[in-house]
Amino acid sequence: MSTSLPFGTCPVAMLGDGERITLAHGEGARMTRRLIERTILPRLGSAVGQYELNDAALLSMPSDRLAFTTDSFVVSPLFFPGGDIGRLAVFGTANDLAVSGAQPMWLSLSLIIEEGLPLGILEQVLESIKRAAQEACVQITTGDTKVVPHGAADGLFINTSGIGPALEPPVLGPASIQAGDELLVSGPIGCHGLAILAAREELDLRPPPESDCASLWPLVSALHAADLLQHVRAMRDATRGGLTAVLHEWANACDLTLRIEESRIPITPNVRGASELLGLDPLYIANEGTMLLAVEPRHTAPIMAALRAQSPGDQACVIGAAQQRASVPVIVSRVTGTPRPLDEASGVLLPRIC
Amino acid sequence: MSTSLPFGTCPVAMLGDGERITLAHGEGARMTRRLIERTILPRLGSAVGQYELNDAALLSMPSDRLAFTTDSFVVSPLFFPGGDIGRLAVFGTANDLAVSGAQPMWLSLSLIIEEGLPLGILEQVLESIKRAAQEACVQITTGDTKVVPHGAADGLFINTSGIGPALEPPVLGPASIQAGDELLVSGPIGCHGLAILAAREELDLRPPPESDCASLWPLVSALHAADLLQHVRAMRDATRGGLTAVLHEWANACDLTLRIEESRIPITPNVRGASELLGLDPLYIANEGTMLLAVEPRHTAPIMAALRAQSPGDQACVIGAAQQRASVPVIVSRVTGTPRPLDEASGVLLPRIC
Repeated sequence: MSTSLPFGTCPVAMLGDGERITLAHGEGARMTRRLIERTILPRLGSAVGQYELNDAALLSMPSDRLAFTTDSFVVSPLFFPGGDIGRLAVFGTANDLAVSGAQPMWLSLSLIIEEGLPLGILEQVLESIKRAAQEACVQITTGDTKVVPHGAADGLFINTSGIGPALEPPVLGPASIQAGDELLVSGPIGCHGLAILAAREELDLRPPPESDCASLWPLVSALHAADLLQHVRAMRDATRGGLTAVLHEWANACDLTLRIEESRIPITPNVRGASELLGLDPLYIANEGTMLLAVEPRHTAPIMAALRAQSPGDQACVIGAAQQRASVPVIVSRVTGTPRPLDEASGVLLPRIC
Repeated sequence: MSTSLPFGTCPVAMLGDGERITLAHGEGARMTRRLIERTILPRLGSAVGQYELNDAALLSMPSDRLAFTTDSFVVSPLFFPGGDIGRLAVFGTANDLAVSGAQPMWLSLSLIIEEGLPLGILEQVLESIKRAAQEACVQITTGDTKVVPHGAADGLFINTSGIGPALEPPVLGPASIQAGDELLVSGPIGCHGLAILAAREELDLRPPPESDCASLWPLVSALHAADLLQHVRAMRDATRGGLTAVLHEWANACDLTLRIEESRIPITPNVRGASELLGLDPLYIANEGTMLLAVEPRHTAPIMAALRAQSPGDQACVIGAAQQRASVPVIVSRVTGTPRPLDEASGVLLPRIC
């Protein structure tokens, strides 16, 4: 087995001399159908709803307002502590629907597979997709499989697109944030990016950092059930670019300054230690199951209670507030001193973290 | 400029020493936003509807029944006579909706870009996507951009997913095909696969074969407007695996034998000549704007008239019929002799044709 294929923490048995994906698996005829019917659909099991082998799935929508989103996943390595590309692909897209104020319902699943990928790797990713789809309460309803020659892709890329009915009342989004609104984070930050970095670079961190990769639907659903979603101005999962990227985008959208206090942001000792060791700032590190919320301040307490009653929201914290626009869009009060501008990242952070 | 990047017939000016995609363009922060705001959205222009920079687009659906489909495009080269990866990505997904009996309405657009791709190439593909979206009457409503290091992908991969309202009455699909139903093809076959092969292998065919890459919505829409869709049992664009793959799938779905006559299948002299030269059978070659239809025989004449009144249906032909199940699922009466089984392809046809 070549070590150049970045499979990460996939069990060694999967990397043996078993069957591998060939170009014929992507030809659209008998071999492709066999791959779908014998490998893909059985492994997805009950996660598959009304799946159409070709063309489109026909679905009945419970609402005339729907949300639609897409994400391609190119993470390297494919397996890492706390997750794998399959879990990321399900939760990433389902979370984009949830934080938009929609119920994740249906996903598409499109695979771009590099010739030579061990079939065992694909099977493990598919089983992971199945479990994640069950956790996120979504069904895979349509798909596509392409195979490219060895060297034309890096193991496996996955695109998932998702649709679901918009919740009522709608979440208005970051342009609706007002001065005085409070900023909440749903859990500890920095876990996912550090887990990927440590797995890719084979850093011997003990314990190894684990991705926070998780479905955010339980949190959004709890807020909706408690009639609290109407008091949430904006929600966003803080993926690429971390908390900082979301803060900047929101500050630009609402033309306010967002101010956060470093001491109030939940960061695990593990992530704090590893970040200091590596000279990284957790505020820029990607998350995959942690979201930022901007909420009306008089409803902060019940919203916090609803978040904290659910996993993965049990460590939710208020970390700051929106205020009238100052000279900079985002300000952080560091633990060590006076408030400072929190600049947007402009260069390469860490490629292929999702 | 390295010649190893398979750009095909892209104008040479695009391959100059201009700006290139870097890993920073995919980081999810400022550089990604700039790429989207300054390159992607302006180039897509009016093809963009209610586009959400992040997360999900919120859409109002005119029907509670919708179709959902996905397709990833990995074609090599990126540009070829008659089309490019952008046109393929729009028409491929829009056609999957149309042949499922749905109106193509909204597409997502997810780009996986290899570091080092000249920005001019990306811009040209985006402009092509814009034109194709206008031709197919669809809007791009949500998207995603990933950049992978040089060598981890091959230039550019595109995923499009699509949704649209299901037409009434619904098209029942291949399981509803009955003995006596007639088989129609909407245009000449074999053009797309040969165009790709000739461009990739730099075959000096004169004139160079051109892809049939086109929107099939005008044909489906015309059938719907004339109240003829209810007499169509099944439609399918004959992409990977060509006409043969669709015939086999349908024969299995309806448990009948499908019989076609080679002499009735439209094939351009150009495709016929090139196929003979290369030892290929057009029945196995991919198409990107040609569909097979199974129709109730007493409605064949008006359906043929409706197809022939529209581009790309002006060369539509009746090519065969369904009959009681014989010993083989698909039979072809060759020009040269007695009827013979048309076997399904089982090996590698031509990789990366879409």
